[in-house]
Amino acid sequence: MLCVGLDPDPTKFPEFLRGDSHDVADRIETFCKQIVDATGDLVCAFKPQIAYFAAYGAEKQLEQICAYIRKQFPDVVLILDAKRGDIGDTAKLYAREAFVRYGADAVTVNPYLGTDSLEPFLATPDKGTIILCRTSNAGSSEFQSLVTDGEPLYLRVARTAAETWRTIGECALVVGATYPGELAAVRAIVGEMPILVPGIGAQGGDIAAVVNAGRDTNNRGLIINSSRAILYADSSKSFADSARKVAIETRDQINRARETR
Amino acid sequence: MLCVGLDPDPTKFPEFLRGDSHDVADRIETFCKQIVDATGDLVCAFKPQIAYFAAYGAEKQLEQICAYIRKQFPDVVLILDAKRGDIGDTAKLYAREAFVRYGADAVTVNPYLGTDSLEPFLATPDKGTIILCRTSNAGSSEFQSLVTDGEPLYLRVARTAAETWRTIGECALVVGATYPGELAAVRAIVGEMPILVPGIGAQGGDIAAVVNAGRDTNNRGLIINSSRAILYADSSKSFADSARKVAIETRDQINRARETR
Repeated sequence: MLCVGLDPDPTKFPEFLRGDSHDVADRIETFCKQIVDATGDLVCAFKPQIAYFAAYGAEKQLEQICAYIRKQFPDVVLILDAKRGDIGDTAKLYAREAFVRYGADAVTVNPYLGTDSLEPFLATPDKGTIILCRTSNAGSSEFQSLVTDGEPLYLRVARTAAETWRTIGECALVVGATYPGELAAVRAIVGEMPILVPGIGAQGGDIAAVVNAGRDTNNRGLIINSSRAILYADSSKSFADSARKVAIETRDQINRARETR
Repeated sequence: MLCVGLDPDPTKFPEFLRGDSHDVADRIETFCKQIVDATGDLVCAFKPQIAYFAAYGAEKQLEQICAYIRKQFPDVVLILDAKRGDIGDTAKLYAREAFVRYGADAVTVNPYLGTDSLEPFLATPDKGTIILCRTSNAGSSEFQSLVTDGEPLYLRVARTAAETWRTIGECALVVGATYPGELAAVRAIVGEMPILVPGIGAQGGDIAAVVNAGRDTNNRGLIINSSRAILYADSSKSFADSARKVAIETRDQINRARETR
């Protein structure tokens, strides 16, 4: 169930990848490929966060990293974390960005614009659309928990996913690890739909609580993301070894939680 | 009040910019710069839609176009239409993408994640944050019009902008031209806050209805966007002249509506 989030922050890179001896975009590529090599056999998914690349003009490097993941670990799901959301014609172009340009298997999107804005993603064959439901940040309740027709907005989103979006295409939801109660409520609505769970590790979500609240009746259905806690476990030359060590510990914690009923 | 949206669609380019004689990204740059030259003296803002560039790997060209707008028309507001929305650390990087990399004066963002996700944008000095409120698409009512505490979600967003977001930084809202009734309701809440209005032209919104519903008490406060109707007015070599002609007509229609009370 472990997903490693690729959030390359050059200010946190190990010493030998800091400095400005070579271009920041190339250093981002080197860093990410070493993390991929070190953890690819431990994960169900990699999730590059496109903002980390866009802020530094490193789109070509992101293309290279995505191609590298495809080649080295063809069975690992490649999720582009982009949280796109726009009207129809523009959404088609964002779908092209994620699925064609970066060759992602799935992309995260924002539901605020409604079903017609999600259709270009959902309707793409053999690709997954992962819709924000209840995000991991402290302020996520401000709009997501507003009660409408007797239920909070995020449960209305979950219900729409279960009743409508999954009839159009493969979909999943995002629910933050920081809200296990809400995660359980979403699971009760969506049956066996996969749920992507950010917010363990540096954001403080509890793994056992996530597994207990979020797994489906087959003890499956979760993609649990950790980024910073794995990527920046160590800032020495052996950062990739340390990342692997933390990834193994995290995977084992998840698996121990799954063994407990 | 006219804003020209830069949504460069290579399949709609004039003949001489179609073909594959040179790279699609370079043709996008050429097309946009000619539109900028032809309309820059008629507009209050240009609004490049980043999806059109991202789908074709044309980020460098978008940088060039933004720099060109800055240089040729320094008084025109440069709005990056990106509809970003992510949690704090990631939002900071999207703010960097919009304001530093592309040098935009303002960027469009999505409110679903709440105030803390908007703060990195709002808190950037001398920059504007334009938050989606009621979008122009047919399905926008699905979540945006859900009633919570006696008012639809999009009015709750407008109220939060008026009460909270504008105390953090410069902000504006997006309300589609296709919903003039909703535009009037938003204006009643936000006072003199600017409103970006997409959806006239190809999407069918009526200019007089938009001006009547959306202007503030000083007969100001609207940024009315047209993209396709101007960009693709003509597919011959004289496309830029035709774009100018339609832009003048549109500006004049807006100004006539403003003169009517």
